[in-house]
This record gives sequence, C-alpha cells and structure tokens, in this order.
Amino acid sequence: MACPIARGLDKVGEWWSILILRDAFYGLTRFDEFQKSLNIAPNMLTRRLTTLVESGLMEKRLYNQRPPRYEYILTERGRDFRQVMLALVSWGNRHFAPEGKAIQLVDIETGKEVELALMDKVTGKPLSPDLHRVVAGPAADERMKERFSRQR
Amino acid sequence: MACPIARGLDKVGEWWSILILRDAFYGLTRFDEFQKSLNIAPNMLTRRLTTLVESGLMEKRLYNQRPPRYEYILTERGRDFRQVMLALVSWGNRHFAPEGKAIQLVDIETGKEVELALMDKVTGKPLSPDLHRVVAGPAADERMKERFSRQR
Repeated sequence: MACPIARGLDKVGEWWSILILRDAFYGLTRFDEFQKSLNIAPNMLTRRLTTLVESGLMEKRLYNQRPPRYEYILTERGRDFRQVMLALVSWGNRHFAPEGKAIQLVDIETGKEVELALMDKVTGKPLSPDLHRVVAGPAADERMKERFSRQR
Repeated sequence: MACPIARGLDKVGEWWSILILRDAFYGLTRFDEFQKSLNIAPNMLTRRLTTLVESGLMEKRLYNQRPPRYEYILTERGRDFRQVMLALVSWGNRHFAPEGKAIQLVDIETGKEVELALMDKVTGKPLSPDLHRVVAGPAADERMKERFSRQR
C-alpha cells in the first residue's frame, strides 16, 4: 500500500477518529471530555485513542498520580493534520450546511470569512489543474505508475 | 450534528470510500475497474458506491444498453472533495513515506514538487493561527458555542 492517502487513512484509524482529532484541536484533552463530546462507549473511545497514540498523532500523558489520570495531547504529526481538517470544514460548509454554517474560519483582523484554497508555498501560486498535477513519485510501484500513465 | 466535519464524514460514508473517490480522480469509472483497484468484495463496493451516489458525490450513468452497464462519475460536489484529498496526500507524504514518495504533486512548468499550504482566496494570505481562526457561525447550536468559548 504505497498510496499516501491509503496510508494516511490507515494511520488515523476509524472514520470517526477524526472527530477525536477535531475535539483535540478545540482544546479537549481528557478522556471524560472526549466521551461527553462524542457520546460513545468508553471501550470504543479507548480503542480509538490507542490507535491515535500508536500512530503518533496523539501523546498520552499522566497528569495525576493518585489516582492515575491521563490526558491526550496532539503531537506535531497530529497538529499537522489541521490542513486536512480545515479542508473538510470548508467542503462540509459548502455542500452540507443548508441552514447556514455552524462553524467558520475567519480572518482575525477583518472578521470576514476565509475562502479556503490550496497554494504552493514555494511559488505562491494558487493550485490549479492547469498549473499542477499529481504524478508518480520516486517510490512508486508498478501499479502506481500504470495508474498515472492512464490519468485523464 | 451541526459540525461540518462530522457531516462531511457522514456523507462520504465509510472510511475507505475515500479510496473510491481517489480512484475516480485518477480516471476510473467502471465497477470492475474500482473492484480491481481496491480488491474488495462486489457487495461492499456496491454499498459504498450507492452511498456516494446518494450523497451526491458520484453519479451513476448507463453507458451500455444490452447488457445494462453503468459507470460512476464524480459530480461537482465530488470533484470539490479534491482539496481534502490533496491535503491528505500531502500529510501522508510528510509523515508516512519513509522510503520516499509514491505520488507527488508537482508544478507542471518546473516539474518541482508543490509544498502544499492553505490560503485565503479573498486576501491571498497563507493561513496562519496568528491571522485566522475557527469561530462559531450563524447556525451554531449551544454546544458548538460553548465549544468555541473554551477554545485555546
């Protein structure tokens, strides 16, 4: 499985684990906070948090000795998932918010809503199918190479 | 469930449905092409394609009358998922490609790899926690408002 999308998905674990990451971005750190927010069974929450810790997206820290209590903090790799998360917010808002937006990304100075786009940090150019494309990389296997040779 | 992330995830359906969207971006359209690429059971592929069609991300089109054969095409909403997909590629490449990149996004003119960043199309500014933030929107419920009042 060389595809970075498949690998990324695999590391995040289950679909709804993204909501744990979301809550972590919102500042939640403790088991009971996540549980209250997500309203899921403790054993399921434990399993998802364990996956996120094993994949290096979150770190488990002891914050109380007696009784032992842990908090879950985003690692650098987890914080770096922010781009994916914001792209999801933007897409969700565009297509699945018929009654208006429940959350939005704004420019702090002007208070105006951000219109999210992707750019190339190197050139400063906004991403466009005319200027950019996905190609097989140096570690591509035969299957990947074949895929890109037939890309439209 | 007012959160656009949760809604977006819900509409895509199962985790691995993203790989169907990925393959559709690569130009695959037919059931047997998806099946070969993803190596999953036909009934599972049918279920996922049906979810994507019901959520308006893909469209099912008859391309052959006898026998009846269908192809699956990305809708505008599905194509708009591209931002999320590219953010996933970029994140996966950064963190889970120890042996090198299997695919990469490049500048067509220079052939150089794109360093993906988010920007505000309105102001042209790259996204930054100093300049931008996520806030409760007009359709936020009490729970969402409370969440953002405690955001760090």
